[in-house]
Amino acid sequence: MSGLTVSDYLLQRLNEIGIDHLFGVPGDFNLAFLDRVIAHPRLAWVGCANELNAAYAADGYARSRRAGALLTTFGVGELSAINGIAGSYAEYVPVIHIVGAPSLSAQQRGDLIHHSLGDGDFSHFLRMQREVTVAQATLTADNACVEIDRVMREALTQRRPGYLLLPVDVAGAPACSPGQPLTLQTQPDDQALQAFRCAAEALLSGARSVSLLADFLADRFGVQQQLAHWLETVPLPHATLLMGKGVLDEQRTGFAGTYAGEGCADGTRRVIEQADVIITVGVRFTDTITVGFTQQIGTAKNIDVQPFSVTVAGQRFDSLPMSTVIEELRQLCQRYAARWTLDYCQPAPLAANDQPGLTQNAFWQAIQAFLQPGDLLVAEQGTAAFGAAALRLPTGAKLVVQPLWGSIGYTLPAAFGAQTAEPERRVILLIGDGSAQLTVQELSSMMRDNLKPLIFVLNNGGYTVERAINGASQRYNDIADWNWTQIPQALSTACPAQSWRVLETVQLTEVLKLIADARRLSLVEVVLPRLDMPPLLQQVSASLHQRNSAQ
Amino acid sequence: MSGLTVSDYLLQRLNEIGIDHLFGVPGDFNLAFLDRVIAHPRLAWVGCANELNAAYAADGYARSRRAGALLTTFGVGELSAINGIAGSYAEYVPVIHIVGAPSLSAQQRGDLIHHSLGDGDFSHFLRMQREVTVAQATLTADNACVEIDRVMREALTQRRPGYLLLPVDVAGAPACSPGQPLTLQTQPDDQALQAFRCAAEALLSGARSVSLLADFLADRFGVQQQLAHWLETVPLPHATLLMGKGVLDEQRTGFAGTYAGEGCADGTRRVIEQADVIITVGVRFTDTITVGFTQQIGTAKNIDVQPFSVTVAGQRFDSLPMSTVIEELRQLCQRYAARWTLDYCQPAPLAANDQPGLTQNAFWQAIQAFLQPGDLLVAEQGTAAFGAAALRLPTGAKLVVQPLWGSIGYTLPAAFGAQTAEPERRVILLIGDGSAQLTVQELSSMMRDNLKPLIFVLNNGGYTVERAINGASQRYNDIADWNWTQIPQALSTACPAQSWRVLETVQLTEVLKLIADARRLSLVEVVLPRLDMPPLLQQVSASLHQRNSAQ
Repeated sequence: MSGLTVSDYLLQRLNEIGIDHLFGVPGDFNLAFLDRVIAHPRLAWVGCANELNAAYAADGYARSRRAGALLTTFGVGELSAINGIAGSYAEYVPVIHIVGAPSLSAQQRGDLIHHSLGDGDFSHFLRMQREVTVAQATLTADNACVEIDRVMREALTQRRPGYLLLPVDVAGAPACSPGQPLTLQTQPDDQALQAFRCAAEALLSGARSVSLLADFLADRFGVQQQLAHWLETVPLPHATLLMGKGVLDEQRTGFAGTYAGEGCADGTRRVIEQADVIITVGVRFTDTITVGFTQQIGTAKNIDVQPFSVTVAGQRFDSLPMSTVIEELRQLCQRYAARWTLDYCQPAPLAANDQPGLTQNAFWQAIQAFLQPGDLLVAEQGTAAFGAAALRLPTGAKLVVQPLWGSIGYTLPAAFGAQTAEPERRVILLIGDGSAQLTVQELSSMMRDNLKPLIFVLNNGGYTVERAINGASQRYNDIADWNWTQIPQALSTACPAQSWRVLETVQLTEVLKLIADARRLSLVEVVLPRLDMPPLLQQVSASLHQRNSAQ
Repeated sequence: MSGLTVSDYLLQRLNEIGIDHLFGVPGDFNLAFLDRVIAHPRLAWVGCANELNAAYAADGYARSRRAGALLTTFGVGELSAINGIAGSYAEYVPVIHIVGAPSLSAQQRGDLIHHSLGDGDFSHFLRMQREVTVAQATLTADNACVEIDRVMREALTQRRPGYLLLPVDVAGAPACSPGQPLTLQTQPDDQALQAFRCAAEALLSGARSVSLLADFLADRFGVQQQLAHWLETVPLPHATLLMGKGVLDEQRTGFAGTYAGEGCADGTRRVIEQADVIITVGVRFTDTITVGFTQQIGTAKNIDVQPFSVTVAGQRFDSLPMSTVIEELRQLCQRYAARWTLDYCQPAPLAANDQPGLTQNAFWQAIQAFLQPGDLLVAEQGTAAFGAAALRLPTGAKLVVQPLWGSIGYTLPAAFGAQTAEPERRVILLIGDGSAQLTVQELSSMMRDNLKPLIFVLNNGGYTVERAINGASQRYNDIADWNWTQIPQALSTACPAQSWRVLETVQLTEVLKLIADARRLSLVEVVLPRLDMPPLLQQVSASLHQRNSAQ
């Protein structure tokens, strides 16, 4: 393998962990690396319209693969992307962020070069990146391979972004091929395991009913199949929160709906909260998905499984990987399940469509009917995500939402990333008009790459989610009116897309028939009432308004 | 003034320093403040399509006013904007960045709330903002007025961004009206002044020739009129660098062109570098505008005036404001000028148009002829800025460029900000197709506000500036092909814009005639050869390629 460089080593490592697309924007400090990307036989360059969009796309990609990768340039590029990386950090998505940097010698001399702050200090951005990444390295010719492995290992283990600063002179430095595959350490602590097993058994053996609540970290730490197996062998009432919706098969008997504290149906609350023991797996109770922390999960009856620890009735056991804990719990449940009564409830159906015209209700009824097994839904924070919370997903369907970080505009590039990761899957993007304006240019990359997502722009004339919280008719919640159906044509000279504007339910139904199996990008502008919103969003925003107004 | 809040105090202070437009994007943590903005009689809300664009717009606005202001929301919003703020920091543009935050009590409790990283630590973003702002404050009901004044004073004095974190519960806390106007301390140190005067006199009195080179910090620290007065009373050969181009009247006798070390005409170099004494005012020799540090300005014969210090032949004098130093130098020059020989040269004319078709040469010839006194040119980093370097600006014209930070996409929103600051001025935006794709949605805000910039999209099919450095025909330098003339229509249902696509010089000339006095937004797509570039850019990129390739 003569002639191999640090760039090649890095690309081999990325490829090894399942990354075969690199998102980003070129800049003069990353062009040497990009030459090696282009030369790589199994890793494709995916240029994006800007860096924030590229970060969102890499995040969307990583949610469908084991990880994602992003390439930007020093200063300007990496800071444009940093909000996307922060979102990946908050929501546990491993994105390897590679930043092309000035040469080490220029950095050491403190040269007054472009893309720096002009003060000779080249560490400003590294310090900023430390706040939103789990590991960082400034690569040199000597440390590159070791540091690449360290940062990638940490990112994959913690399921959070890692940062690699690659100076132009290091990108071409000689390196070997990776000798061994990258290994992650996941050994459980035997003593902790033993102690946990006793504590869990004591709780479960005495219970008369047990419920299971799973959330996004179960998806991030890869235990989805284990959970499915568990629920196959032991019937339990179960639910997810919005953030982890899709991690459980919503067609399985015992699925009780999307749990949201006071924001969900009484039945869902009852079967989850009133069980003698509540097992929570990968759950974080954040404000928006619990209508302001209204969950009622008493510590004494809770077994809380987190990525590297588990807490049983308030007693915490560390150094236990989630997958180990789940297998233990499955076995314990299997042993004692015969003693438990099953309190099942059906997920609440969508709110009845009691108003004329194309309302939020009518829209979500139509989308529910439109869904197919295996669909990948991407729903923007706002009316889209809170509307999607009430859907009952078909088997194998996946939902991408960002309720904790909640950066509007995220989903359009994230859908691009998801569709790049899974080009044959039906990707359905649900996004409001206000949000879509933030990142709209990435439609052009989707068309360039002949991707075929189905895009619904919920045009309600501005930031309805903000109107709900404050200033329903204030003009700061208005946005410029766009001709949405003309956008694809404007953003591509060889436009392969089709688009529609629908104002009536019957039109929507007709269009849905047309695009169900579309092989090209389809954009549907859905005109909805300005102040209409899904029931969950009404509750959440009332709660936020109250919390923001409290002195 | 009963019922006045912290929000009102802040708005009064902003307004007092000449800010009457606030750029930004609403978010639930800043809506309470926004209600007060809307209620303010003299300060208008300017909603932008996304936060990075808003930061660029505030920067463009601040370059036409004394300062600018930006409003975002916690985490997601402020980080989306942070690259724009970093650019303002690098290039000395005071933008007050106000960030709506969760309530202090929620922060203190460490609540798991949206737009946080979910770890209960609400200081991550403050630490990041410290790297790119000159002063920061987390406002409380008790400290708000004092801290607002401190941050604004520091930002205005240093001409760099300041950061104000405004929690929702503090926005509505009671406050008084500002008692006294905000004052800045600019007293020179008398001893230093005396010592500097002696040193400068020794150098100037013995000189046989003196030249003056001014750059962007002369603009930022407000000494443009003083420089004009100086050159009126004392004839000297003078030039600017690209970054400060426009700070001197380019029609005045003695103006020698845009200095760029080896990158400029021999005559310009000679009259600047070969003088016995070279006075540099507000100059920073950064890599791209000096073709890789090729300036020849010996320390022994240099008087270097910086914002708060001056260095005479290597001896530095601190605590001296730029304006004080300039008045001293003007008087000294007046005293000794009779001894000096004047070595003048005319600015080099634009390169001859020696090729058929619509080339870069032909384009810049046409733009040169099109310019009018008082024009405000905004030229994007790339072929646009390096082409503009060779223009001879009419009297009163201003040029906005960003050669140090060099964040592509900056100028489109910056032109929006500039035109908002000066609605009646003719604003001419020169931007490449690759750059315009990053921030295109802000065209929609310009149309919403009925602004009338003249926009030239230099369509050369990708990142020509990168092609020049590396990978001339690599596909990472290609971008998606857009229908540029359809963009305004797609981004506005009430589109007040007009647009053209020109492929021939004669078409360009015709269109220029049509739009010379246009009262509405005009977009001209200028189709240019893919690898054609202005002479200065050729030199700069050859230098960058060499530096990036050096081991």
